[in-house]
Amino acid sequence: MAEVKNKQVIFKNYVEGVPKESDMYISDTATIKLKVPHEEEASPSVLVKNLYLSCDPVMRIRMRKPGDETSSYFTPFAPGSPIVGYGVSKVVDSKHPEFKAGDLVWGITKWEEYILIKNTQSFFKINHTDVPLSYYTGILGMPGMTAYAGFYEVCNPKKGEYVYVSSAFGAVGQLVGQFAKLMGCYVVGSAGSQEKVDILKNKFGFDEAFNYKEEADLTAALKRYFPQGIDIYFENVGGKMLDAVLLNMRLHGRIAVCGMISQYNFEQHQGVTNLMHLVYKRVRMEGFFVPDFYHLYPKFLDLVVPFIKQGNITYVEDIVEGLENGPASLVRLFSGRNAGKAVVVVARE
Amino acid sequence: MAEVKNKQVIFKNYVEGVPKESDMYISDTATIKLKVPHEEEASPSVLVKNLYLSCDPVMRIRMRKPGDETSSYFTPFAPGSPIVGYGVSKVVDSKHPEFKAGDLVWGITKWEEYILIKNTQSFFKINHTDVPLSYYTGILGMPGMTAYAGFYEVCNPKKGEYVYVSSAFGAVGQLVGQFAKLMGCYVVGSAGSQEKVDILKNKFGFDEAFNYKEEADLTAALKRYFPQGIDIYFENVGGKMLDAVLLNMRLHGRIAVCGMISQYNFEQHQGVTNLMHLVYKRVRMEGFFVPDFYHLYPKFLDLVVPFIKQGNITYVEDIVEGLENGPASLVRLFSGRNAGKAVVVVARE
Repeated sequence: MAEVKNKQVIFKNYVEGVPKESDMYISDTATIKLKVPHEEEASPSVLVKNLYLSCDPVMRIRMRKPGDETSSYFTPFAPGSPIVGYGVSKVVDSKHPEFKAGDLVWGITKWEEYILIKNTQSFFKINHTDVPLSYYTGILGMPGMTAYAGFYEVCNPKKGEYVYVSSAFGAVGQLVGQFAKLMGCYVVGSAGSQEKVDILKNKFGFDEAFNYKEEADLTAALKRYFPQGIDIYFENVGGKMLDAVLLNMRLHGRIAVCGMISQYNFEQHQGVTNLMHLVYKRVRMEGFFVPDFYHLYPKFLDLVVPFIKQGNITYVEDIVEGLENGPASLVRLFSGRNAGKAVVVVARE
Repeated sequence: MAEVKNKQVIFKNYVEGVPKESDMYISDTATIKLKVPHEEEASPSVLVKNLYLSCDPVMRIRMRKPGDETSSYFTPFAPGSPIVGYGVSKVVDSKHPEFKAGDLVWGITKWEEYILIKNTQSFFKINHTDVPLSYYTGILGMPGMTAYAGFYEVCNPKKGEYVYVSSAFGAVGQLVGQFAKLMGCYVVGSAGSQEKVDILKNKFGFDEAFNYKEEADLTAALKRYFPQGIDIYFENVGGKMLDAVLLNMRLHGRIAVCGMISQYNFEQHQGVTNLMHLVYKRVRMEGFFVPDFYHLYPKFLDLVVPFIKQGNITYVEDIVEGLENGPASLVRLFSGRNAGKAVVVVARE
């Protein structure tokens, strides 16, 4: 069988500091047979065509050099190989009994046009196709499940509670805020531009929002928006923001630690100095990892798909066309210049 | 009725840095009538004679100048007034229906010979008197309940788990370690001298113990004692120790934050940089405050009193005689020179 060209985004080398487009390059040299090879039948593989690729903050962690403690939890990218990440794909050929040609799936793939998937464990079959397919990189994919697990499962929210979301315009944050509003909470979000702040308030229905870059004193800013204090903090950024939040938590507050994007470009993270406030206010701070919650995916769909169809939840995507524009989209995440969930279109069908 | 002299330990002024004996002074000028005054009958008061006073790390927090966030949780001591703290006392006169002359009690009192207690809410009547009375400042008092609540209620321990206790020779730490051993956990403690380390291993039955002052690299030390990682960390010290622990936690580990004694003398606490490990290992870190658990005191006694009588738990006290020696005992806590639960004897009867 003839081979086809397989365009790829290759990871050049481990990154220190802010990732740049030049940390990746486009390769046109690879080819691939669009058939699961015979010898793969023992461990049933699937050959897929990638349609949409997802840019996620956690990918910065995987750009770090192996060797520190991190690498046992997030396998570093291999220099000279394609970037690894979540995506939406279409099955071209399958030796796996649960997948057949034409099926749509989402899960962990690589930044290339076609890929032979030997480990289908992270793959979910897409059954609801009356929503935008790209949503399975976001609201109906890993970021959606992250918002759901972190907010409902980790934070144990109650109606009327005061909720603060940092990086509120991100793929996860915009959903956490909307989940919290649907539950009857008071919700404030922060983001990095006035434009994002306006959308948080006017489109996502946050009660308040602010541009953290305009606040010289984050503690004072939070005190202004939360005179009664914060019951729930959905932690996406870390560092100074976390320190300011700790000073503003309420008794028996909860902090779901999803990530700390403000810190990923530092070799040594900024020190957090106000942890004694965990004691003063009896606060629970808990890290979580979304794959631990994937067994809840059907329950999640039952909740969120109707919300989308009825217009109770909106979702903003920042879509770029073409695999070759993937690196630019990915690096924009780490400069705060993305405008919603960052998605790369590889092919529409 | 005649008044008697009432010796007091007076708090001189707010403290910065390491507390010194000269931050307090002994006063012989006060007098007190050994009778509840008539006008107090509306809110029933109790006049007690203090027998044992307790030196606790949290008292350092109350020496800070009011004004920062801390003061709304731990009321600062009033300059010119006696030190406030836990103690064991004997009721001399009572207008309160639940207390009568001769009753032994423990709870929040002041550093003086006699005191009129208008708020008896923090008082517990002592029913088991076949153990040393001073134990009600420690193993059977606030520190005992702290160890119990933090270990059993916050950490949710399981047999066979790996438990690390810092400040393990302290009033709380020595109990946490013994509770963990009784539950079938593997327990390592750290302390600040070889003598303490030996007692942790030989008297309290810790599996291992080390002198943190002799370890140039705390992360490496913990890796040596916990090659499989730490399931439960009972946090008493904060700062660099917490950072090292975060690197050594296991998946789904728990950190009960009791206090951070290494930090209390700093105006600005040391920064903790490894909090992303809460995410990598899905760790829950939770602050707690023992009065929230005082409803469990009867259950606690049912567990611990038999342990004491059967010799399953031992408890080391560092007892000084005389109220006038209280300041020296208290400041020793913050230099790590105390040798067990610090108790000040005011009167034996």
